[in-house]
Amino acid sequence: MESTKQIDILALLKDVLPKEQLLSGDEISEDYGHDEMGTYFHLPDLVVKAKSTEDVSAVMKVAYAQNIPVVVRGAGTGLVGGSIAVKGGILIDLSGMNQIKELDEDNLTLTVDPGVLLMDIKSFTEEKGFFYPPDPGEKSATIGGNISTNAGGMRAIKYGVTRDFIRALTVVAPNGDVMHLGGKVVKNSSGYDLKDLVIGSEGTLGIVTEATLKLIMLPTVTTSLLIPFESFEGAIKNVPVILRSGIVPTAMEFFENNSVKFWEIFTNKVFPEDNHTAYLLLSFDGQTTEEVEGAYEKVAEICLDNGAEDVYVLDDDGQRDTVWTARGAFLEAIKNSTTEMEEADVVVPRSKIVDFIQFTHDTSKSEAIRIPGFGHVGDGNLHFYICRDDLDDQTWQAKLNTVFDAMYAEGRKLGGQVSGEHGIGMAKRKYLNLALEDSTLNMMRAIKKAVDPNNILNPEKVI
Amino acid sequence: MESTKQIDILALLKDVLPKEQLLSGDEISEDYGHDEMGTYFHLPDLVVKAKSTEDVSAVMKVAYAQNIPVVVRGAGTGLVGGSIAVKGGILIDLSGMNQIKELDEDNLTLTVDPGVLLMDIKSFTEEKGFFYPPDPGEKSATIGGNISTNAGGMRAIKYGVTRDFIRALTVVAPNGDVMHLGGKVVKNSSGYDLKDLVIGSEGTLGIVTEATLKLIMLPTVTTSLLIPFESFEGAIKNVPVILRSGIVPTAMEFFENNSVKFWEIFTNKVFPEDNHTAYLLLSFDGQTTEEVEGAYEKVAEICLDNGAEDVYVLDDDGQRDTVWTARGAFLEAIKNSTTEMEEADVVVPRSKIVDFIQFTHDTSKSEAIRIPGFGHVGDGNLHFYICRDDLDDQTWQAKLNTVFDAMYAEGRKLGGQVSGEHGIGMAKRKYLNLALEDSTLNMMRAIKKAVDPNNILNPEKVI
Repeated sequence: MESTKQIDILALLKDVLPKEQLLSGDEISEDYGHDEMGTYFHLPDLVVKAKSTEDVSAVMKVAYAQNIPVVVRGAGTGLVGGSIAVKGGILIDLSGMNQIKELDEDNLTLTVDPGVLLMDIKSFTEEKGFFYPPDPGEKSATIGGNISTNAGGMRAIKYGVTRDFIRALTVVAPNGDVMHLGGKVVKNSSGYDLKDLVIGSEGTLGIVTEATLKLIMLPTVTTSLLIPFESFEGAIKNVPVILRSGIVPTAMEFFENNSVKFWEIFTNKVFPEDNHTAYLLLSFDGQTTEEVEGAYEKVAEICLDNGAEDVYVLDDDGQRDTVWTARGAFLEAIKNSTTEMEEADVVVPRSKIVDFIQFTHDTSKSEAIRIPGFGHVGDGNLHFYICRDDLDDQTWQAKLNTVFDAMYAEGRKLGGQVSGEHGIGMAKRKYLNLALEDSTLNMMRAIKKAVDPNNILNPEKVI
Repeated sequence: MESTKQIDILALLKDVLPKEQLLSGDEISEDYGHDEMGTYFHLPDLVVKAKSTEDVSAVMKVAYAQNIPVVVRGAGTGLVGGSIAVKGGILIDLSGMNQIKELDEDNLTLTVDPGVLLMDIKSFTEEKGFFYPPDPGEKSATIGGNISTNAGGMRAIKYGVTRDFIRALTVVAPNGDVMHLGGKVVKNSSGYDLKDLVIGSEGTLGIVTEATLKLIMLPTVTTSLLIPFESFEGAIKNVPVILRSGIVPTAMEFFENNSVKFWEIFTNKVFPEDNHTAYLLLSFDGQTTEEVEGAYEKVAEICLDNGAEDVYVLDDDGQRDTVWTARGAFLEAIKNSTTEMEEADVVVPRSKIVDFIQFTHDTSKSEAIRIPGFGHVGDGNLHFYICRDDLDDQTWQAKLNTVFDAMYAEGRKLGGQVSGEHGIGMAKRKYLNLALEDSTLNMMRAIKKAVDPNNILNPEKVI
């Protein structure tokens, strides 16, 4: 059956796209079957290497007419199985659509293909004095992928998330229609906000084939502070005090000693001041030295008054790079410390983050399983990694279920949400179902059905 | 027919709500038939004075079962007929739901009823050192109304619009279901973004019965600059130069001499420096005097180098109040200068605002009709008022159509959108239809149908 279907899809698409853009059978590499986390594996029947909005539209017209499942993939750096072709069918690979199309210096916008990497946006804009603030840890992700999960990142506390920097999208609907949503305008009250509905919908409502990003001017002065504490509660109790001071740091990250140690083992490097229990890592940016100095000095004072063991101003470029590179590599370092892992990206109100960390510590102890975590404490959004280590398959699955059930239940209790920035994909569907009211789920399902009546776009994801 | 229906609705609702919350017949004042602009007039068959989410849900369950049109009203300060009960039926008056429910100082949120006025949010938060940045001109509007049109206001250039400050909404669906969207969390990638879909949908997808707003800390230092120019182009050419300097003013307003003169006549007061052709009015805020002074001095320098006739620092409280109060009253002053008027709220990319103003000047001349305008030049969003003056009914309607057709066509040509912040309502439906692609309109209609299959919520509005 599978093989008949595969031949059919290839035959159908050969009529609308050149053969060299279509991969089938052995041409489809294993990489197309999994994402960064690697929890799920399923290959599509056919891979389309799209080159344009028109290509995507042509494929969707065929898929819509023939009821073929379609999933979209960028760089495959997702963590929740969102880009897995779990029902086979067509996988549209957008990584080849990777051109930066226009920098509009008057309107402060950048128009890009969906396959452009975050690191390429960074280097292109910053060397010209412009700034795209969203800063997810994974710099080799595509902007299309960032849009699909509404990725957050380190600078959300000051600047916001991906959604806040998307001015316009070109979107291919499930039936192949092309929509141009938003524009270079900075405000818009003209009909329903389809742009924001598509952002974060993880490729289940439409396929983003072009994005116009909002830029700001690159801050000319930046500084970072590394602040060690004797306990995690001691570190985190400073967060609301800092925010109520009127200072808004650019980033406000939290980690414990275990992440530092995993990183040292992973990289064989030494983290500065590596023997403290918990850390806050903050950055500040602005247009003048006075402004930035005023901000970080006030924050240093607050923390020293509130239990900080010391405050290190990372004014040496090398040291600053070491610390931030380490922070960016904690995920890899933890992955390297174990045989297999699963992640939770629960977001809770800022005031509840201490409770949530305490709960994971307690759960780790009671279940005898490692759950290292770190992340965006200023956003109430930490990432926790449940480590398999040497557990056998059955014990691992059972413990993972127990731990996840407990953590998501606690997240709900604390007024949190299932995902702060990684999305739902396949991995978190169960917990989204438990978290949302029937009324809200029904509305989401009604919208999915209205937009994609045959459920061909990324089936079995999100809801 | 009308009267039979009226009696039926009253009878039906008497079963679910106390009689004193239901107004019918002569109890329904004329005010319920129109909004601030006064273009449309139609009375509902019944007015419900809602006191709670449960009241609204109970009414919607009856309306859903019986297929009765429902429109929601706050303070009635809308400008596009969005709250007119054009098909009769039920009008739910939310102005009585006006309690500020919770200030959460740790999570920096304020939870309010939909009928709370913008001016009350301002006074409540600012006296405690907190700040809700969105600043639409009409301070006696309700927050529910602001949410329904995604209202913008003076500070959008620095802080964003209403959407950017809504953390959570309680929404009653057309079938009476209650949904809790978002939360006190500051990030969220957990399913479809229904919250942003409801914001700006002008009461056609759901009824907002509670909102949790994002607050920031009140800036402790603010300053304003009034900068006169010899020509409107001369004023506006400074906007991109200022924004590329890295300084982000809190507000960046533009007006011409005619608005100043209308205000002087309307109020019998004198505007400072009232004899210039065009003005930029800017404000700056921050946590320190150095930061704010540094910003406004740099901007003053830019403008003086680029054709400003002078730069007035409004450091006298009285003078600053006069200027901003005048700016806030231009709409009323223009209204007072004519017999009847209609407004356009077109938003264009910032780089195109000079072209758009020039076009309205040219159109005003060629059609021999006054079209004064002013507004948020930093957002590419000016408000223009087409004044009837002494035109007879037929000429007025004909000219209004010609002028609107031309202005909206020009807006589309320049990459603009129909409404920057006032919404579509009834008044702008024709132009939204002309502006949107079929693909986008079809998607909006499909979503409306999925959410409200019998089209009972605010029928004949938006799409």
